[in-house]
Amino acid sequence: MPPKPSDLAFVPFVSVENMMKLVHRIGIEPMLEGIAAYIEEDFRRWDLFDKTPRIASHSREGVIELMPTSDGEVYGFKYVNGHPKNTAEGLQTVTAFGLLATVDTGYPVLLSEMTVLTALRTAATSAMVARHLAPKGARTMAMIGNGAQSEFQALAMRVICGIDRLRLYDIDRAATDKVMRNLAGYGFTLEPCATPEEAIEGAQIITTCTADKQFATILTENMIGTGVHINAIGGDCPGKTELHPGILSRADVFVEYPPQTRVEGEIQQMPADFPVIEMWQVITGAAPGRTGPDRITLFDGVGFAIEDFSALRYVRDQLDETGLYQNLDMIADPDDPRDLFGMVARAGG
Amino acid sequence: MPPKPSDLAFVPFVSVENMMKLVHRIGIEPMLEGIAAYIEEDFRRWDLFDKTPRIASHSREGVIELMPTSDGEVYGFKYVNGHPKNTAEGLQTVTAFGLLATVDTGYPVLLSEMTVLTALRTAATSAMVARHLAPKGARTMAMIGNGAQSEFQALAMRVICGIDRLRLYDIDRAATDKVMRNLAGYGFTLEPCATPEEAIEGAQIITTCTADKQFATILTENMIGTGVHINAIGGDCPGKTELHPGILSRADVFVEYPPQTRVEGEIQQMPADFPVIEMWQVITGAAPGRTGPDRITLFDGVGFAIEDFSALRYVRDQLDETGLYQNLDMIADPDDPRDLFGMVARAGG
Repeated sequence: MPPKPSDLAFVPFVSVENMMKLVHRIGIEPMLEGIAAYIEEDFRRWDLFDKTPRIASHSREGVIELMPTSDGEVYGFKYVNGHPKNTAEGLQTVTAFGLLATVDTGYPVLLSEMTVLTALRTAATSAMVARHLAPKGARTMAMIGNGAQSEFQALAMRVICGIDRLRLYDIDRAATDKVMRNLAGYGFTLEPCATPEEAIEGAQIITTCTADKQFATILTENMIGTGVHINAIGGDCPGKTELHPGILSRADVFVEYPPQTRVEGEIQQMPADFPVIEMWQVITGAAPGRTGPDRITLFDGVGFAIEDFSALRYVRDQLDETGLYQNLDMIADPDDPRDLFGMVARAGG
Repeated sequence: MPPKPSDLAFVPFVSVENMMKLVHRIGIEPMLEGIAAYIEEDFRRWDLFDKTPRIASHSREGVIELMPTSDGEVYGFKYVNGHPKNTAEGLQTVTAFGLLATVDTGYPVLLSEMTVLTALRTAATSAMVARHLAPKGARTMAMIGNGAQSEFQALAMRVICGIDRLRLYDIDRAATDKVMRNLAGYGFTLEPCATPEEAIEGAQIITTCTADKQFATILTENMIGTGVHINAIGGDCPGKTELHPGILSRADVFVEYPPQTRVEGEIQQMPADFPVIEMWQVITGAAPGRTGPDRITLFDGVGFAIEDFSALRYVRDQLDETGLYQNLDMIADPDDPRDLFGMVARAGG
């Protein structure tokens, strides 16, 4: 009999099916809260991390990216694509998977689907940031763009920030109807709107999350009054923005990692020295967040590797208790590490 | 019943066990030949590829690297670690896995173990290069460093270059004995040697493949005569070299991708403008290879992403015929791509 892989050869793998089971086991709102707590914890120790802008491979139709980081003990990376035209072919715009490994040995310790997990961590990040920046007592959010990310955003904003009224707009009314259906029963007041202008009426938080790969102006300058928090997460690659630059000029702009955001975020429209505040500094208290009730705060969120790292840490910490994983025979593990050839030869029985 | 993942959600995965079965199904020598042919094919179309030095995360104990590339239709990357101290803990110095995806959609189409496959592709690359550069009629190879890569090197050099006599040296005689055992029955004349000097006697090809992460001098200047091909593959990260710089000065030095090799290869010891020849140009005929029987040719091999891409292409092309893979539920695939949340919600059903 050929030898069977040993324990060392196995990497715990969380499939899409197991990730969905994990969401239901824990509950989506507690899971969003849990992931947000891990992300905030990692933002607090920002200095510890190896940070690099993601490594992108662009094509005419989309982008494939690798997002690595490390806290010195654990290494993680995410593979993620962004293909806006996929939707028309019945495919996901964004799919992803990720990995954690121990820095000390380089051995992987977790492989996980991250299409669902990226949706959760993006929403958790937005809501954690909004909790620091939004006007006190915010209860109404405008949600412009009602695609795959929108329900996750809504639930994270509810459990983390107390949002319970949603004003929904999408150029495709069917997308809004989908959100209305999916969020019925979660206790929101849901208000479909005919225009972006209508959607932002009375909203203290404005989330823009659209998918077109182009310079767009979802929010024009005259639409935005004072005392709001804008959560701009749809502009996330070169050539893809959602806001009029005039809004950026009037707002206090908060970012994850400036070298990446200046290339990918809304601020790609602005000069290279356009002032931004790093979100981790707000969280540690090193920089001010909202400085007055009339300020416009703007989170120019593009998604950074540390957020994926945090989300993978969260998932890893649930494995023992839930058992929601399978072992993958991904690492060759010869009895004598110098005898890889012997292991291969003996596998022939 | 919760919905089951659809065909779109599945990614073919080649485990270590299936990779070893594939080696035995095809035969290790034909497989090395096959992979070498794919690598040579991709070297011929070098200009088509997105090329970037690998993205390394260094720690005191080792390195974790991501190696992406794309030919415009297919995207690939490898995760690989290098931890010389692992051996003492009973772990592999190098473990790896890799992925192919379609550029058009960003969807993964293959996930594969690459610890075994990296050993195969490294040997296939060395032998393919040696076939272009080594002196005519070479039959004897000195193999300095008898670790996990050495048997693969030997077999690739045999099937691709006609090497049938091996002179083996390692600072640890037990490693040499392991190679002697593993290669018995493959038709080599095997000669264990007490010193590197003894090992290189009469050799037309000298392979150095040692693992210490330090500046080492496995070959000193006075050891190397004329008319040999040096296959230097152990020096592959910053601070890790094997050859005295005097040898580099006397040799015609061939490399894979200069921006990576100047940081990681033997030539990190040389000035930034030290002349090198890109191997793909030798293969297309744009640059000369060996210009005379007395030249010292030196392949400063560090391992480049395109070689992993070629090896993964080779493996992918065997899947249909061999069936040696399993389907991994790695990509979320909702019926309506904008309705990721609905898919997750219904999975609780």
